[in-house]
Amino acid sequence: MRISFCCLDTPPQPWLDGLRAAFPEAMVEVWTPGAPLADYAVVWAPPQAFFDEQTRLKGIFNIGAGVDALLKLRLPPGVPVVRLEDAGMSVQMAEYVCHAVIRHFREFDAYAAYVAQGQWTQRPPRLRSDFPVGVMGLGVLGERVCRALAQFEFPVNGWSRSPRPLAGVQGFSGATGFNDFLAASRVLVCLLPLTPETENIMRRETLARLRPGGYVINVARGRHLVDEDLVALIDSGHLAGATLDVFRTEPLPPTHPFWTQPGITLTPHTSARTLREESIAQMAGKLRALHGGAPIASLAGRVDTHKGY
Amino acid sequence: MRISFCCLDTPPQPWLDGLRAAFPEAMVEVWTPGAPLADYAVVWAPPQAFFDEQTRLKGIFNIGAGVDALLKLRLPPGVPVVRLEDAGMSVQMAEYVCHAVIRHFREFDAYAAYVAQGQWTQRPPRLRSDFPVGVMGLGVLGERVCRALAQFEFPVNGWSRSPRPLAGVQGFSGATGFNDFLAASRVLVCLLPLTPETENIMRRETLARLRPGGYVINVARGRHLVDEDLVALIDSGHLAGATLDVFRTEPLPPTHPFWTQPGITLTPHTSARTLREESIAQMAGKLRALHGGAPIASLAGRVDTHKGY
Repeated sequence: MRISFCCLDTPPQPWLDGLRAAFPEAMVEVWTPGAPLADYAVVWAPPQAFFDEQTRLKGIFNIGAGVDALLKLRLPPGVPVVRLEDAGMSVQMAEYVCHAVIRHFREFDAYAAYVAQGQWTQRPPRLRSDFPVGVMGLGVLGERVCRALAQFEFPVNGWSRSPRPLAGVQGFSGATGFNDFLAASRVLVCLLPLTPETENIMRRETLARLRPGGYVINVARGRHLVDEDLVALIDSGHLAGATLDVFRTEPLPPTHPFWTQPGITLTPHTSARTLREESIAQMAGKLRALHGGAPIASLAGRVDTHKGY
Repeated sequence: MRISFCCLDTPPQPWLDGLRAAFPEAMVEVWTPGAPLADYAVVWAPPQAFFDEQTRLKGIFNIGAGVDALLKLRLPPGVPVVRLEDAGMSVQMAEYVCHAVIRHFREFDAYAAYVAQGQWTQRPPRLRSDFPVGVMGLGVLGERVCRALAQFEFPVNGWSRSPRPLAGVQGFSGATGFNDFLAASRVLVCLLPLTPETENIMRRETLARLRPGGYVINVARGRHLVDEDLVALIDSGHLAGATLDVFRTEPLPPTHPFWTQPGITLTPHTSARTLREESIAQMAGKLRALHGGAPIASLAGRVDTHKGY
């Protein structure tokens, strides 16, 4: 068995070590142009040339949850694409989103401003019933985020492409349910895959449907959000602000208005980092199953290349 | 039935309205010196004169969870003292503590500093196994906090006066278990009642036993903590910092070093606010039970005046 590793921007050695330990019988090598044909590919943002050359692949493993970059390439038809499903990411996502929601709901930034001025000031308590949180995208990450928010007794609305009932979550689905979902939510969390249908899903006309004082948390992809529409709705006062971890261009360009926009909290794509050991263990398990003849349909995290996730 | 309301620093009208609605047959009045003798008292930080005059009380209801101020007074012997048990406070406490733990663990202050300088910098991810959280005090609030932290997969240690097994929590108890509890914890959360035994429980010799890079979260009472010892251990580098909601003197005096100490985050006693409607509903239920002859031992939140909580 030969495994080709082609992950740009990722130091390869720890991954090679981990994969070689998991598959002592295999050849595991970093791909270079002209390399021998491999059975399996472990990839992150590979160049098109990788797939143009590697014509004997039996499986493609993406070391992340998002496959939007991968699916822009011409992939070998019929070869299963498998993405990371959780691998320690869902707990990070839950903690990132809960932190952002609580920080906003409890007005901790306002308290920090008082303290910076040496002021002891209590603000009137706010009711969590006034802060329903809407989560777009109810995959493994979205479900975990909903569960964590519900524990803090926020009303939670969930929206997904097709109906996905979750305990304690008011469910909405499809195009027909989208406006009702927005109107029922004050805080909007984006955990969607990036597809042609979801690109620019957060724009003026949709964000304007959120309850007054709305708040946006984007932990999915920068292209889900129309940047200038968010800024305009914050400036107009309809939205209270946003916490953004992802951007249309990363790193965020130095001149981008988000850096200095009041009400916006930024982080540099750190909401859920790929944890190497968990990722290798998960991927090795799936690769072994596939290699051993397990039906493709039985692999968790298998990507539907038509749906785009 | 006559109910006397004696809560300093609390606007009385909403409480009177709520209590009158719950007990239409009762006289509910704000206490003034010389007022008629009442059957039940609803109090927060009353003066000694209240209990000196009110000699026919059959029950004392404290509109908060902490009874340390109340128990300093000479109370009528044998009269049950009942405190608020939750009334919307445990969820607030869980969210306050989780926010503080996540903010510290995920280094959001460091990220804010990068962003303020226009820097896109990712820090190496930290392992949650390196951040065991120790919760002192396993009452209604402490248990809820433990449960919330465990959901984010932090290792959780719990310490209480007598053993209190909780699912998913490594339990420690009593004086004999205290040093082991501290040595097993990196983040220390104080949710203890303030008693002679727990006063100054966080001081140089105890805080020094926390794992290096320790972090203190005090949401109980200011007198649990020796202020200058905390500052010294932060300055020496043994502790990374603290989030403090309660202080020996409140409001925190303008010259207190906590205002400007690096590593310390302050809030003005806002971790868990008494929510009026929930409090009235809970208190009314207990008062009605007591008045109807329910055994005192059956009342949740009954205070053991010897133990002090």
